[in-house]
Amino acid sequence: MVDGQPLRILILGGGFGGVYTAMALGRRLGRDPRVEITLVNRDNYLVFQPLLPEVIAGSIGILHTIIPIRRLCPRVRLYTREIEEIDLLRQTVITSPGVDHQATTLHYDHLVVALGNTTRLGEVPGLQEHAFPFKYLGDALALRNHVLHALEEAAVETDPDVRQSLLTFVVAGGGFSGVEVAAELNDFLRKAAANYQGIRTDEIRVVLLQGGARILPELSDSLASFAHEKLLHRKVDVRLGTRIAGATAEFAILKSGEKIRTRTLVSTVPMGAHPLLAAQSWKMEKGRVVVDEFLQVAGHPGVWAVGDCAYSLNAATGQPHPPTAQHALRQGQCVAANIAATLRGSPPTAFSFSTLGQMGALGAHSAVADVMGVKLSGFLAWLLWRGIYLTKIPGIDRKLRVSMDWLLDLLLPPDIVQLKTARPAGIDRQHFEPGQIIFSEGDVGDLVYTIVKGEVEVLREGLGETARPLAQLGPGQWFGETALVGRAPRNATVRALKPLDVLTLDREGFNSLFTHVRPLHQFFSDLIRERSAISG
Amino acid sequence: MVDGQPLRILILGGGFGGVYTAMALGRRLGRDPRVEITLVNRDNYLVFQPLLPEVIAGSIGILHTIIPIRRLCPRVRLYTREIEEIDLLRQTVITSPGVDHQATTLHYDHLVVALGNTTRLGEVPGLQEHAFPFKYLGDALALRNHVLHALEEAAVETDPDVRQSLLTFVVAGGGFSGVEVAAELNDFLRKAAANYQGIRTDEIRVVLLQGGARILPELSDSLASFAHEKLLHRKVDVRLGTRIAGATAEFAILKSGEKIRTRTLVSTVPMGAHPLLAAQSWKMEKGRVVVDEFLQVAGHPGVWAVGDCAYSLNAATGQPHPPTAQHALRQGQCVAANIAATLRGSPPTAFSFSTLGQMGALGAHSAVADVMGVKLSGFLAWLLWRGIYLTKIPGIDRKLRVSMDWLLDLLLPPDIVQLKTARPAGIDRQHFEPGQIIFSEGDVGDLVYTIVKGEVEVLREGLGETARPLAQLGPGQWFGETALVGRAPRNATVRALKPLDVLTLDREGFNSLFTHVRPLHQFFSDLIRERSAISG
Repeated sequence: MVDGQPLRILILGGGFGGVYTAMALGRRLGRDPRVEITLVNRDNYLVFQPLLPEVIAGSIGILHTIIPIRRLCPRVRLYTREIEEIDLLRQTVITSPGVDHQATTLHYDHLVVALGNTTRLGEVPGLQEHAFPFKYLGDALALRNHVLHALEEAAVETDPDVRQSLLTFVVAGGGFSGVEVAAELNDFLRKAAANYQGIRTDEIRVVLLQGGARILPELSDSLASFAHEKLLHRKVDVRLGTRIAGATAEFAILKSGEKIRTRTLVSTVPMGAHPLLAAQSWKMEKGRVVVDEFLQVAGHPGVWAVGDCAYSLNAATGQPHPPTAQHALRQGQCVAANIAATLRGSPPTAFSFSTLGQMGALGAHSAVADVMGVKLSGFLAWLLWRGIYLTKIPGIDRKLRVSMDWLLDLLLPPDIVQLKTARPAGIDRQHFEPGQIIFSEGDVGDLVYTIVKGEVEVLREGLGETARPLAQLGPGQWFGETALVGRAPRNATVRALKPLDVLTLDREGFNSLFTHVRPLHQFFSDLIRERSAISG
Repeated sequence: MVDGQPLRILILGGGFGGVYTAMALGRRLGRDPRVEITLVNRDNYLVFQPLLPEVIAGSIGILHTIIPIRRLCPRVRLYTREIEEIDLLRQTVITSPGVDHQATTLHYDHLVVALGNTTRLGEVPGLQEHAFPFKYLGDALALRNHVLHALEEAAVETDPDVRQSLLTFVVAGGGFSGVEVAAELNDFLRKAAANYQGIRTDEIRVVLLQGGARILPELSDSLASFAHEKLLHRKVDVRLGTRIAGATAEFAILKSGEKIRTRTLVSTVPMGAHPLLAAQSWKMEKGRVVVDEFLQVAGHPGVWAVGDCAYSLNAATGQPHPPTAQHALRQGQCVAANIAATLRGSPPTAFSFSTLGQMGALGAHSAVADVMGVKLSGFLAWLLWRGIYLTKIPGIDRKLRVSMDWLLDLLLPPDIVQLKTARPAGIDRQHFEPGQIIFSEGDVGDLVYTIVKGEVEVLREGLGETARPLAQLGPGQWFGETALVGRAPRNATVRALKPLDVLTLDREGFNSLFTHVRPLHQFFSDLIRERSAISG
């Protein structure tokens, strides 16, 4: 702290840990002109995750699961930016550009790291490309819209196999998040089906995959069995002792090798460290930053970590504190107190807290709860679940809106509008398993493909003849350009020979890019000429 | 109609015209197994446009301005697809693929065209790239999120020019739509500013541009002046006799040559024909399909058109019916009756309807209304406005939800959460005017550019020296790749010499595409080597 300059406290991340640190600091130091409190977060809101599954069914207003950070921390300077770089030596953080192309460099005297963790889909083939994560509001919305798309298509689909795959929904992960998503999804689908002429409720299948021997390992055996029974009773297909091993657009692959035909795979496992954290010089444990009992990062005075990204031990049990909101917000308050103490020259306080309880909603007015040793299940647990979260959601505004949503939800049928958002011309990725058809002769040519990894064969099926192989293609090679350029149906079938990763480019992207890029224009003109010569 | 086959009625478009045709047909013929009614629409919902401006402020739930079509027309088969082709000769319509890559071909005996019109931004340079249209729910959401982004950035921006441009909002078009958007935006911004430390209400400027001599040409002089006064009183800068002549990311250009520094330009003018309609053999007038008094397309028996896309004359006045919802829905009902009459062998009925009235909201509990000759303005008109639209919005579900939204809106502060939706790696377009800087030395390298039209110069500014030109680039040439590949700041400044259209590719798109595309990889490696040799 330079004389005359304010002391700068910088908080990274706007989840429960970051926001509650900022709220507590704002109350303690916000009016002090010698202190400047800044928070950086990708969004200008805090996500109230317990209510996120309700967005799927639209039983809660989309905006009501999120709370504006500015309302919660009026005395804190907020940057709604991505974080590009943390420099512990220079004591600076660089954010992504806001307007124009200038990045912002923020200096700090105290740094509070509250960056949570990220969904890590990359390790299972095809998961990154084809599974829906479920962590942010955007994820919940994307899942809702995709599920409605599946119902819309199933209602007019005539191929029974495609229909079945459209009406099968797989949720991987049997912890709180997976169970709540599966339960909510199942309820919503069965209610919504009433609006779809020709979809019968008994055609809908929701599958919950859990690697362990039982669901909800966070809870006691008896509550977990209660939840399991409830899910079975509502026709959720609970599969224990099995994990996801791969995914394509058309099926999910289990560890056993079994393939489940589905167009909707949600992954609620596993979580990884935020990439910026792993790149620092501090000590990490299980993807989390190691902190001492005061939540300070060892060897880095003035640097603190809270919430899911902090590895802090419970002094009583010797175990790390679990990554839950109730811990994150109390750690935030503790760090705020410790920073204030440091400024006063008082000693810091050790963090101490034990889980108050855990609750999970099971849909259809049922839940399980374990609150301070009291175990509850069923309707009473559900009332408690709603009551507790209603008191926990910050701000009278949100409490009122959510109560109103819940009231209307009791009276009205579920909402089935599918909210598509504008999609720019784009590049995407897809994964295919050996033997899978990428496209068939006669299909609409809507994408062009380039192979990142793997191999395909190109086949021509004459009238009544067996398929005749035309070519084999490997990494760096393209296919699908002829139909796209000529706006004609596909003139060949392409099938994966090995596990295949491709980049795809849609028609708009292909056209705008390749009309204006000379080397590509030449390359594709040559390619099309050459291939039309071969296939004659 | 082949014996034994059902008679197929196909409706294209799910606006008021299409949906009310489907509703009326469903009631008349929906239970008749010999008739099959099908509707094709991009979305599975009807947009209730009068309430769309309220989405900007979040004073109404996002999903409450749209109504599921399946609920309104339970006996109608719905395809939520794009329409790719209309073939009047073969009596078929081809839709975009649903799942996988198969298009669907639909055959019809009667065709009802209700495709509305589209926002045509293409004719003014830069409008397509930089103006927000305001027609669909997605437009309203995109505008809301952009406006909140502008507030977020203004709150932390230190450059006074950039700050001013962030806090200036321009709405082009002084008809109902433009006036309602400007009024709603203005109210919302002034209320929301209270949550932004360091933004003063008097820094916010909303500009309404109108080409004619007065706003609201749809209404009487006295009501228009009332509305004009109200807007001025609320500090909206109403500019008459001026039009938009161009746009860039940084300013709006008026016909007079004046430039208004702004980051937010909304265009509510002008509308054009749906591209599929213009490609048909039928007669068009002012971008609309010409129909006879029975709403049948001349020379095409069994083909009907309703709503904004139909050019039908008012027999009493000789003028075309205006493109409003009240006409569209009555035309839909008329066509449904005429198709039913045709099936019975009865004569069709001519369409006859005169505008009942018009209303426009002015924000802050004020409106103007002209209902069956009675002119109202102010609070009473606003109550009437809300009352009428509440009765007009279809379904008890939506009536209840909207009433509740309005009630809560009176009690609670406006919602300022900025809902970003996931954006895939992408290709985009931008427009620049001569002299404008595309990027400056030292900026973050976040995009790579290729020139579609125009010319730029590349400048190097040494320490304390004047800028030294390095190169001039024209159509087909690239710039900005060095910083992107090297993840370094820009090593030069690029300025537009002529009006410039560029394609941009973001870092993710550039990397994924150019890592895997050999000719491009070679091209860029050569380019970077060559340019680093020149600039030494």
